[in-house]
This record gives sequence, C-alpha cells and structure tokens, in this order.
Amino acid sequence: MDQELADPAPLAALIGALRRLPGVGVKSARRMAYHLLQHDQPGAIALTQALAQALTELRHCERCNTFSVEPICALCADPRRDATQLCIVETPADQNVIEASHGYRGLYYILMGRLSPLGGAGAEEIGLARVLERAADGVVREVILATSFTAEGDVTAHYLGDALRARGLTVTRLARGVPAGSELEYVDAGTVAWALAERRS
Amino acid sequence: MDQELADPAPLAALIGALRRLPGVGVKSARRMAYHLLQHDQPGAIALTQALAQALTELRHCERCNTFSVEPICALCADPRRDATQLCIVETPADQNVIEASHGYRGLYYILMGRLSPLGGAGAEEIGLARVLERAADGVVREVILATSFTAEGDVTAHYLGDALRARGLTVTRLARGVPAGSELEYVDAGTVAWALAERRS
Repeated sequence: MDQELADPAPLAALIGALRRLPGVGVKSARRMAYHLLQHDQPGAIALTQALAQALTELRHCERCNTFSVEPICALCADPRRDATQLCIVETPADQNVIEASHGYRGLYYILMGRLSPLGGAGAEEIGLARVLERAADGVVREVILATSFTAEGDVTAHYLGDALRARGLTVTRLARGVPAGSELEYVDAGTVAWALAERRS
Repeated sequence: MDQELADPAPLAALIGALRRLPGVGVKSARRMAYHLLQHDQPGAIALTQALAQALTELRHCERCNTFSVEPICALCADPRRDATQLCIVETPADQNVIEASHGYRGLYYILMGRLSPLGGAGAEEIGLARVLERAADGVVREVILATSFTAEGDVTAHYLGDALRARGLTVTRLARGVPAGSELEYVDAGTVAWALAERRS
C-alpha cells in the first residue's frame, strides 16, 4: 500500500489495541475505530473510563475467584447457599447459566479459563492450587465439575476430578444427554451415543 | 436472573461500553471484558491509552476530512497528486481500496459516513456544505463519486451528484459491472443486468 496512506499514528495505535480483543480482526477493528472517533466520541470516553475503573476497582473474590469489588462476593457471602456443594465453572457467564436454571443452591468456584495443553494454558494458569485449597475447606462434600463439554473443558474436568478425588472429595460431572425440547432426529450422533450409554431406569 | 448474580458495577459498566461498539452484542462484550480483565490487562491498558490519545490528537484534515494529526494530511499536501480530480468516498478504508488499485492519482474527500434517510443521517451529518466548498475550489474539474453500491451509497451519490452538477462540475461515478476474475455463472443477476446495460464496444 502506498506510503501516503499510512494511518496517522494515534489511529494505527487504536486499531492495534482493538485488534487484541477476542474475535476482532483488522477490518472490524478499523470499523470500530472509525465509529468511536467519528460517530460516538461519548462512547469512546465511556469505554476509556469503564476500562480504567474496572482495572482499578475489580479484584477476584477470595473464595470463588469471580470478579468482585468486595474481597468476598455477594454469592459467597450469602448464608442461604449450601456450603457443602461446590460447582466449578470456567467463566462467570457459565455461572450465570447455572444460576438461571434454578437447579443449584450451593457455592461456586470460577476458574476464569480452562486447561489448554495446545494453547499453553497449564495447571498454573487455571490456579489448581487455589481450587484444591478452596475445595478442601472441610465443609465442601461434593464438587460438581461444570466445565464445558468441549475437548478442553473435558481435559480440565478430568484433571481437576483426579486431583480432587485424590483428596477424598466426592466429584460429579454435569450429565450429558439429549437437550431439553429437542427432537431426536436433529440431535447429533455423539450426543445420542452418550444418552444411550448413560440411560436411566 | 437471581439478584446475587448481578455483575459488579465496574464490570457491568465495561460490558455496557463495549456493547456500543459496532457489531458487538452482549455475549461478545462479556467475552471481551473477561478477556481484557483476566487474560490481557496490558491490552486493556493499551486500549485505554490508545483511545485517550486518539481522541486528543486526531483531527480532521481541513481539505479531505480524513483523520489526521496535522491540519492538512500527507496525501492532500502531496504536490504530485492531480488536484483537478476529486474522488469522494465514504470512509478511509474505501480510500485505501482505491489507492491500492493504483488507478487514481487525484485527491480525495472522505465523507466519514453516508446519507441514511431511514437511519436519520441527512445532509448535515455528511457535511454537504463542506463537500461543495471543497469541490468548488476552482481547481477541481472532475468529481468521481466512489460511494458504495448499496442503497444508501447510491442515494448519497445521487444527492451529491445533483448538488455538484448544479455548480457546473463534471461528475462521474465508478463503473458497475462484472468483477475482475469472476465466472459469469456465479455473478448475481443484478450485476449482470448492469454490465449488459453499460456494455462497451
């Protein structure tokens, strides 16, 4: 491309910073930069302030590792929750899904990631030591592994399950099977195979 | 959703600010926020700084309206460009595409938007007065309308063309037709209809 058309340095820096966001390529980053600078400067200012504030004010809950302003988040501090159950999820979004099911009244631990042997995320990145310390508080009886049913989520569940069972804890995993409301004809074969293997009387 | 699971305020504000970006829904915004806070804090800091710097340092080139640090951008200040031709595009990205074609040596005017009668973007939003003032500098002979070939881009071209012709300028539009390298079988009917209507001997 011609030299005359190099982006001005501050624009190039902004496009570069936006590209670091997950799922954002160079064309999207450029479109976002134009939008913020041309059509939504208040939005750009809001984003700057929100980022700065989130970086300074948010910490990790000392018990469940989710994002929190307080040392202990509201859910961990709630005495109505059943402290004998600990559900391990990958992200706060996954935790939201479980809460929305209204099927669980225990506590959580949020990994904020998962093992990714190929991606270079090992036991340290998911903070295995903290998970084990949390689960071994003497009150937790059952640990429910609710990581994703993907290759990486399964590896994570396997790895955590082994370590937790070795410490004498009861470890369970979310059931696999046919999703609620689905017509069998449209369910993939892998799911049906699991549903058959784990059929219940 | 249960009250316990409301996002901490700084996280909710960050997700809200990210949602204002074009093409970003609530799930992407959440994923971006987790990524920045958990896995790329240097990226979050870089984004904050890049935004603040772009907002303070970037202005619009007084001649072509593109983003520029200087009052007149490098391309407008280049004496080797043909000042009798003025190409009107919607965005700097469109300008890049035309430069990359190596088929044009004139100057540009960047609208930074387009007319959108339904979206509420009228003549003022695209700065019609500035376009006309720029085109009527006494040097420009031909104005090439290179807005997109979408409904809104066509409306913009039509509108600008009428106003510029009324001031005695020669106005042209990019040719429509079959894209280079395409097999006719896979070209849409509308494009073929245009290519037929504007066939050349």
